[in-house]
Parts: sequence; C-alpha cells; structure tokens
Amino acid sequence: MNSGTTGAEILLVEDNPNDVELILHVFQWCNLGDKIHVAWNGEEAIDYLFGTGPYEGKSAGRPKVILLDLKLPKVDGLEVLRKIKKDPSTHSIPVVVFTSSREERDIVESYALGVNSYIVKPVQFDQFANVIRDLGLYWQVINQPPVENNKTKSNNSQPPMENKQG
Amino acid sequence: MNSGTTGAEILLVEDNPNDVELILHVFQWCNLGDKIHVAWNGEEAIDYLFGTGPYEGKSAGRPKVILLDLKLPKVDGLEVLRKIKKDPSTHSIPVVVFTSSREERDIVESYALGVNSYIVKPVQFDQFANVIRDLGLYWQVINQPPVENNKTKSNNSQPPMENKQG
Repeated sequence: MNSGTTGAEILLVEDNPNDVELILHVFQWCNLGDKIHVAWNGEEAIDYLFGTGPYEGKSAGRPKVILLDLKLPKVDGLEVLRKIKKDPSTHSIPVVVFTSSREERDIVESYALGVNSYIVKPVQFDQFANVIRDLGLYWQVINQPPVENNKTKSNNSQPPMENKQG
Repeated sequence: MNSGTTGAEILLVEDNPNDVELILHVFQWCNLGDKIHVAWNGEEAIDYLFGTGPYEGKSAGRPKVILLDLKLPKVDGLEVLRKIKKDPSTHSIPVVVFTSSREERDIVESYALGVNSYIVKPVQFDQFANVIRDLGLYWQVINQPPVENNKTKSNNSQPPMENKQG
C-alpha cells in the first residue's frame, strides 16, 4: 500500500478503519495487496486523482479501479463519483461503489452518474471477504482497463510502496 | 434459456455459435443458465431491449447485465452500446463488452461510450470458461443492478453467495 505516490492499481476510498483493514488483508492474501492506495475521505480521493492539494506536482493517479464508499467525510461519495465521471481525464476509470447502503436513491443516483458497478457490503464476515476477493480479481485481472491508464502507468517508474497502516 | 420472452437476467449478444454454446454451458453449470436470452446480431439486441421489431408489444427487456460482442452482423456492437447508453430507459443497464478485440480504438471507444466493463475473450478453452463463470457470478450475484430492473423482476432477493474456489 502506498500513501504518497500516485501509481496504485486500486484506489480504495473508505473511512472505516475496520473495513480498510479487512479489505487490505484480503487483497494481500490474493496477491493484489501491494498496489493499493487508501484515501480516507472524499477530498483526499479527489486530490489523489487530480493531482491537487497534497498531491500537487505529482502525476495524477490512474488506478485500474476505484472502490468508493458512499458515506465519507469532507466530500460525499456521490460527489466524488460525479467529479470522476464528469471530467474527461478521469471518466473512463472504472468506479465500483462499495457501500453498506441499499437505499434506492443511492443506487439510482450512482447508476445515473455512470458508476461501473454497485456492490452492497455483505454483513457476514466470510461473505464480505469473498466479495472483496471476487471484485478485486474481477477488476484487477479479468477486466481490461482503459488504454490511456495502462500507458500512464507503463511510463511511470514506481517509487517504493509504503504501508500507510504501518 | 428463453428465446421469445423479455424477462431474461442476462442478455447475450453474440453471433458465434461456438462461443454461444460454451457460454450457455458454463452458465448452466453455475446455475445461471435458465434466464439467458441470446440475440444473434445487433439489430435483434436493440429490438429486444426497446420492444421493437419482433418484440413489439412485449415489455422491453431489462436484464441484470448485457454481454456484448463487438463484431456483429447488421448493427455493430459499438453502435448497440451507443444506443443503450444514450437512451434514458436503458443507460443504467450494466453492459460488459466481451470480445476478441484487443484493439486500442475499441477499448477507448467502449469506455468513452460508457461501457461498464471490457473483457477480452481468452483464447485458451479453460481460461475462457473460467472468465465466463467469474463474470456471470459477478454481475448476477455480486453486483446490485439498477433498482428499476429489480422492480421489474419483483422483489428478487439476492441469491446466496457461493464460494467458487470450492
């Protein structure tokens, strides 16, 4: 997991430390664990993707997939989704909403904004872990990401990864 | 598999009979096999989704996911995708392009048109079957489809998660 670089393959936008810990654990177990960046609120996700704020001067992040919680501090998940799908430089990055919300308005609004996939977090531990594994493998291994993202990444020499969680 | 109704959960748009046979076989093996509609060309897919042509008078099809080949007779796959993502009545239906094309222009154009996921058909038989299984389970079981689709299907509770690693 890296904290200061923008070369991650998965951007995880999640404020719940327990969920972050479990997600990172499953990804690591599936060998998807070393190229994840965690943004702990919506503002940080936007800064990471657009190279603003603390990420100014770094090349903008182009992950293969963004896992986006909806209920986030500072900037709400739907607002983050709106920004990503509106901007030509980011709109093709696959975004998976990964949330505890089953509310119809969240589902409808997410699809209206162009979300690629919407997943409700399972309550049971083993199902939660299985879903993380399956979605990680799907978007990391099976899905073909937008070409411009690959190119950006192939030209970037990656600084060594840092584990933000210590 | 159903051929004349519009209540399928998966719409498969594919003109290659060998691919259709293998896909249906894998879906059946994973218990996803009985609610698939096959459209053998782009025109049939559009008629199915919009209730036109041979499907006039039937309610328009609202599958959980559309698997779309790109090289299709009559109407090209990218044109089908454009129509689906442009029309408010269909734009939220998840579309997975499933194609042998690795061409950059197809990938870029698909994402620009709003495809939910882009998958290159593996050449090897066992990999092809594995990808079909994984994408079928992902979009049928893990992904939460747009609410209007659920409603059409009337209180469908999500099937229990399956551990596909055995």
